[in-house]
Amino acid sequence: MARLGASKVSLSSLSSQALWQQTNRLEGYGEELFRFTDRKDVPYILAPTHEEEITTLVSKTIKSYKSLPLRLYQIGRKYRDEIRPRHGVLRSREFVMKDLYTFDHSRQSALKTYEEARSAYTRLFDELKLPYLVAEASSGDIGGDLSHEYHLPSSIGEDNVISCTDCNYVANEELATARPIPLQDNSPSGVIDDKNSTAAQVWRGISKDRKTLVNVWYPASFSGADINTHALQSSIPGLDSSLDNALPAWESALSASSSSISEQQPRLLNIIDYRLGQQFVDGLQKEPNQFPTLPHDAPINLSQLDQQYITFSAQGEPFNTIRIRNGDHCPRCTSGTLKVQKAVELGHTFHLGTKYSDALNARVEVPSAMIEDTHGASTKPDQMTRVPMQMGCHGIGVSRIIGAVADHLADERGLNWPRAIAPFEVAVIPGRKMEEAAATVSSLLTESSDNYPAIDLAVDDRDASLPWKMNDADLVGYPVIVVVGSKWKSEHLCEVQCRRLDSKEFVPLDSLREHVHKLLAQL
Amino acid sequence: MARLGASKVSLSSLSSQALWQQTNRLEGYGEELFRFTDRKDVPYILAPTHEEEITTLVSKTIKSYKSLPLRLYQIGRKYRDEIRPRHGVLRSREFVMKDLYTFDHSRQSALKTYEEARSAYTRLFDELKLPYLVAEASSGDIGGDLSHEYHLPSSIGEDNVISCTDCNYVANEELATARPIPLQDNSPSGVIDDKNSTAAQVWRGISKDRKTLVNVWYPASFSGADINTHALQSSIPGLDSSLDNALPAWESALSASSSSISEQQPRLLNIIDYRLGQQFVDGLQKEPNQFPTLPHDAPINLSQLDQQYITFSAQGEPFNTIRIRNGDHCPRCTSGTLKVQKAVELGHTFHLGTKYSDALNARVEVPSAMIEDTHGASTKPDQMTRVPMQMGCHGIGVSRIIGAVADHLADERGLNWPRAIAPFEVAVIPGRKMEEAAATVSSLLTESSDNYPAIDLAVDDRDASLPWKMNDADLVGYPVIVVVGSKWKSEHLCEVQCRRLDSKEFVPLDSLREHVHKLLAQL
Repeated sequence: MARLGASKVSLSSLSSQALWQQTNRLEGYGEELFRFTDRKDVPYILAPTHEEEITTLVSKTIKSYKSLPLRLYQIGRKYRDEIRPRHGVLRSREFVMKDLYTFDHSRQSALKTYEEARSAYTRLFDELKLPYLVAEASSGDIGGDLSHEYHLPSSIGEDNVISCTDCNYVANEELATARPIPLQDNSPSGVIDDKNSTAAQVWRGISKDRKTLVNVWYPASFSGADINTHALQSSIPGLDSSLDNALPAWESALSASSSSISEQQPRLLNIIDYRLGQQFVDGLQKEPNQFPTLPHDAPINLSQLDQQYITFSAQGEPFNTIRIRNGDHCPRCTSGTLKVQKAVELGHTFHLGTKYSDALNARVEVPSAMIEDTHGASTKPDQMTRVPMQMGCHGIGVSRIIGAVADHLADERGLNWPRAIAPFEVAVIPGRKMEEAAATVSSLLTESSDNYPAIDLAVDDRDASLPWKMNDADLVGYPVIVVVGSKWKSEHLCEVQCRRLDSKEFVPLDSLREHVHKLLAQL
Repeated sequence: MARLGASKVSLSSLSSQALWQQTNRLEGYGEELFRFTDRKDVPYILAPTHEEEITTLVSKTIKSYKSLPLRLYQIGRKYRDEIRPRHGVLRSREFVMKDLYTFDHSRQSALKTYEEARSAYTRLFDELKLPYLVAEASSGDIGGDLSHEYHLPSSIGEDNVISCTDCNYVANEELATARPIPLQDNSPSGVIDDKNSTAAQVWRGISKDRKTLVNVWYPASFSGADINTHALQSSIPGLDSSLDNALPAWESALSASSSSISEQQPRLLNIIDYRLGQQFVDGLQKEPNQFPTLPHDAPINLSQLDQQYITFSAQGEPFNTIRIRNGDHCPRCTSGTLKVQKAVELGHTFHLGTKYSDALNARVEVPSAMIEDTHGASTKPDQMTRVPMQMGCHGIGVSRIIGAVADHLADERGLNWPRAIAPFEVAVIPGRKMEEAAATVSSLLTESSDNYPAIDLAVDDRDASLPWKMNDADLVGYPVIVVVGSKWKSEHLCEVQCRRLDSKEFVPLDSLREHVHKLLAQL
């Protein structure tokens, strides 16, 4: 954050509902907001993020483009009434975030800021020396049109990240696309047995306004759980993705329409997966009754409904209704195949544009001549225009990193911390009555020199046995452990242990620093 | 906190109402608690303090006296729905506290812990080099029987702190007592004109259960605002101190009793200030009708009431009903007089005893032989007893210190920070194109040597004029400012400024460090 020239702030966790109404997010966040009123019945929320607060603060303070770019960050608690809090700090209702907010006077300058923030995040995650993924992402509730997610693969992750084996394509499942596969291809999602090519199943969805019924036709070799609801949603934006089973909603929509005037008649959309082929589409259109286009006891006839057939996605490609699977074809290169990994989202960068500055009227004065699209109109040199600030927001889940890294690196003996976030880089553990020797060892390691920086270490001087303390150090997960035990007495050797690198060596004092630094450089 | 061997923790700001019910504090805090429910209608509060949470955590973890003493602290946000938030961070509804909680297995050990915590607090406040006061205090809602407050005198303070001019007596007004003054004394609260010695006024109070009416008789030379309600409350614990005017409550109590059975008759307490003398007491007892013992239109007779006359306080001293004023006599020494100062409470230490450990069943096993009051009963050497932990809690208002110190030290040119809490100890301010000279100066000051520690400094390298930057540094309130301006070019002199010490000197580079350190040592 210092390298970005960002200043540290600390905003209130209490935010007013009136403010959130101005950006239309009070409804959008729904039940995830903790809401309450104060003793005067003024309605508040516990802030899950701070775009509204920071935009208000900055709009009161910054009036001219000369004060921009401005970058502000904080490290503090956020609140979200999660429907399923789980895995300790990995998904909790009170959590710690580092959030950075950026303000620029033009889109061009804001995109430069975005790239700087993105590089800072990359450098930060690089220091963990863990195999993280940077995925192209959708912006969700936050808004804006450019965004990346930073993921750590983990078996307890709740996101699916898609990456290519050959090129640098990485995307969140919500955004990822697989290249459609020729019908006779034998990659995992393309295998269609010729005889069963028309063995289709239907998945039913419905629009939020309950006026569009959706039949998704897909090969019977897949199951309903394989349907890519993100892909459906990007082609049918009004689709209600919150329903696990749309059939009851269908049935009430059909009953309502059968008993009322025709303008309320629902529309029926048939989306046909490309794997089923043109023959299936033709059959469906000609003889819809051979397929369960409506539930068998529907109180309405097919002929009463406005039916549509969709075989191409909004992106103009043959409609792929099936979630990406390992081995699918990369959409960006011709050679690569895709890999699906469960992952934990650790960070997110967003270019927000003017979504919040428009809603909260956060504007700065800019010389009219500097505005990009003046279409060559002549302006007086001192003429000023007030434009909404271009914003970005960039978050890191601080407590979530702890949980994800703990899960990623723990083994049966305890935790393991990357050097960058370890409580201490090294633990020096003396045997009983070896305190003096431990002091010699630790003063050597904490000294800085031209070749070596000082090491941040802890000496375990508790009154306990050496095996107990070594066991405890394994539980805590110090990157490197230096044991000052019986071999020190006899030969002035320390035992240097590193569980992650499976290294255990007796090292004399004069090569101890070199040895420890060599290990730390890999952690 | 490190010197106390305290470990840092970070507790949730969300606490459950069910937990607070176990210690009876849910009601006690009343409207000051922000309350809300989650999506499953579970009731929560935003924690204003963390005794309940930490006691629960510790009781689940610590089982044996061998793990004690235990000291845990945090620095984080607290919430209180203040009826009158004011003065920015001085009294706000969301604020930052440093809170330390201590756990011991015996009262003796807990008192030792208390003294250690108290010394740590004294050392911390000493570093501010401000005239703070340590006052004996009452424990209020927190509970316990030993407590001190740490105050900074300030015109915007909401506490009154009483201190002696001669001895080390300092007490919060709630606890302070003045030594009764011989009747003919002419110290401020003792002046009674002989002729008017029986010119008395009455202040009316009532008990919370509305069954005890209270007449406080005091000399007419004082006013109702001079009544020491704290002193009254310590002698009449049931007194309702929340009423500004008890008369309406009196009247309804009298009406209710006049129309009902005798056991509900209120009791009338007459408290007589010692200044009025025995003659007044005699007169009141013999001819109560000459004084307005009841409101003149009371629906009841004096003879129907059980009347009592009180002339001595609960401490067994002649009853002093008047608030302490400057010049009153010190209760602890014979020579000193008292001084009343408005002050801001910055910190508070409490010995809690077993209030929370009893309520939350936080117990440890202790060898029975170690328990103090075994009355010499013989116990087996390995017999264990489970005793509630002895606790202490100790808080510092971090955001409030900022507000109080800002108020205490600001002048018309800007803020002023003590070295210990300044954002930077020194600001180096170069004139235009003097960046290189500023680098020379700052590298000299940031170097540590045997004689001088490194200075924590900021270089103002912003692109602005020297006068603008000097003005801005005054606003920010750096303890010392080093200007690298025109005299550097001509004579290699820096101008060193310290507004608080009214010092401004041109100093050559070779004596700069000594000069700056000499100033800092006083700040």
